[in-house]
Amino acid sequence: MMEQTSKRHIIRWNQLESNPLDDELVVEEPLEIRIREQSLIVVMRTPGNDFELAAGFLYTENLIKSVDDIQIISYCDDENEDKESVGRNQPLTSFQNIVNVHLTNEMSLDEQQGWQRNFHANASCGLCGKMTIDAVRLQIDPINSDFQLMRTVFYKLNERLRMSQTIFEKTGGLHAAGLFDKNGELLILREDIGRHNAVDKVIGQALLSNMLPLDQHLLMVSGRASFEIIQKALFARIPVVVAVSAASSLAVDLAEEGNITLIGFLREKRMAVYSHPDRII
Amino acid sequence: MMEQTSKRHIIRWNQLESNPLDDELVVEEPLEIRIREQSLIVVMRTPGNDFELAAGFLYTENLIKSVDDIQIISYCDDENEDKESVGRNQPLTSFQNIVNVHLTNEMSLDEQQGWQRNFHANASCGLCGKMTIDAVRLQIDPINSDFQLMRTVFYKLNERLRMSQTIFEKTGGLHAAGLFDKNGELLILREDIGRHNAVDKVIGQALLSNMLPLDQHLLMVSGRASFEIIQKALFARIPVVVAVSAASSLAVDLAEEGNITLIGFLREKRMAVYSHPDRII
Repeated sequence: MMEQTSKRHIIRWNQLESNPLDDELVVEEPLEIRIREQSLIVVMRTPGNDFELAAGFLYTENLIKSVDDIQIISYCDDENEDKESVGRNQPLTSFQNIVNVHLTNEMSLDEQQGWQRNFHANASCGLCGKMTIDAVRLQIDPINSDFQLMRTVFYKLNERLRMSQTIFEKTGGLHAAGLFDKNGELLILREDIGRHNAVDKVIGQALLSNMLPLDQHLLMVSGRASFEIIQKALFARIPVVVAVSAASSLAVDLAEEGNITLIGFLREKRMAVYSHPDRII
Repeated sequence: MMEQTSKRHIIRWNQLESNPLDDELVVEEPLEIRIREQSLIVVMRTPGNDFELAAGFLYTENLIKSVDDIQIISYCDDENEDKESVGRNQPLTSFQNIVNVHLTNEMSLDEQQGWQRNFHANASCGLCGKMTIDAVRLQIDPINSDFQLMRTVFYKLNERLRMSQTIFEKTGGLHAAGLFDKNGELLILREDIGRHNAVDKVIGQALLSNMLPLDQHLLMVSGRASFEIIQKALFARIPVVVAVSAASSLAVDLAEEGNITLIGFLREKRMAVYSHPDRII
């Protein structure tokens, strides 16, 4: 396990009093994802589950089509193949911030640059809202899932997610993403300083465990629902997305078109249903 | 003004009751920033203050050195030069999602690609935490500012920021960034679905108003303080950064090295001082 929190000496002010103390902070470090030793992107993430993050990112950006496209994922340094299992308290060194993905069918450099262009087009979402949504709709069919959930299941989710968030408790600085089944059981939970990373880690774990498509599952995110979260859910075929906080206009539009039930402001026994309420029974 | 909120028909569940209603959502749309008609990056943002966003982004990513480097910023469509002033209720069309920046010294395409590489190196933060911080430190000297603030000023900030947040009140879905002077007076406030965008809009406004360097100012952000927020503050020479929520390890490290006073968890009359507490009197 890599360290996901880090101690710093701080001063805490409370009204007129100031007290020095040691505080736990969430660790933020860059991760460079390489394909065939060539940099694809660098994301700022909380260390841990890096292979899942890489796999999930490649999948939800449409750079790979299935788990079979991945041959091996390893940290950069050839002499130190899997540092994730080396044990705690080891300082983060550069090889732990570079992940190399070897694909089953290695692309030529030209093709890879084509991918990069694709990726940028994807991540950047085209030129305008309409064109973007069109582009996504062309690539991905709307989700066709008979998945339905009891209303009472939703009201349990918040507590389950929060109860399982260990690092958030310590630092208050983390986003969480959780994959739930139809009974509201939490199957996968990942925490990260970035919401998108937390979602990629969840979907990456599901991908590497051969669980895809996730058309009988619910994804919950701790923050807001943006366009990119819905896009990732759509690639993984997740029919229900729940956010603790607000949804954006474009997220709702994409959920509407992708046949995703999008729920926001889930607080205790209240929620706002933005699209496809028919999955709630 | 472009629309920053958008109505959608939703269903609100409260315990056993469900009620259909119209809800205001924060608008999320992509903005493509072009230099000399060539795409540099696309960001997902809340429309409005797009020229400031473009200017602030270019400045805080070190792509321009001063306001004098900017010749003109305009929306893409040549026949419709400044659509920002056209009035409300006009549907967003694609030209409003593309901003063209013309620079005083136009670069050749090769140079521009060099810039793009620089940008990616910057935004992506290099290969590992250490290298990144070193890289930033090489580019930017630590802030040398005698700026100091009364403790009581901090305790007023939260209320000022929240009182001025109009869109957040309506949608609950927005981040805010505010620039304050030493008396705690709010000079510039910007709201956006992205924290980084809100900061870029504030710094862009300051840049276009010839207020830089901001070495007698305080920047407050509504969410967490990440590495990139501190990096942007460092480029604009802002000596004090306050976040409503937690700071990451890398944010604290960069603030420490850049001589920025970083404060988190500002809630009523409490706060956590992560670095350089000497600016609080």
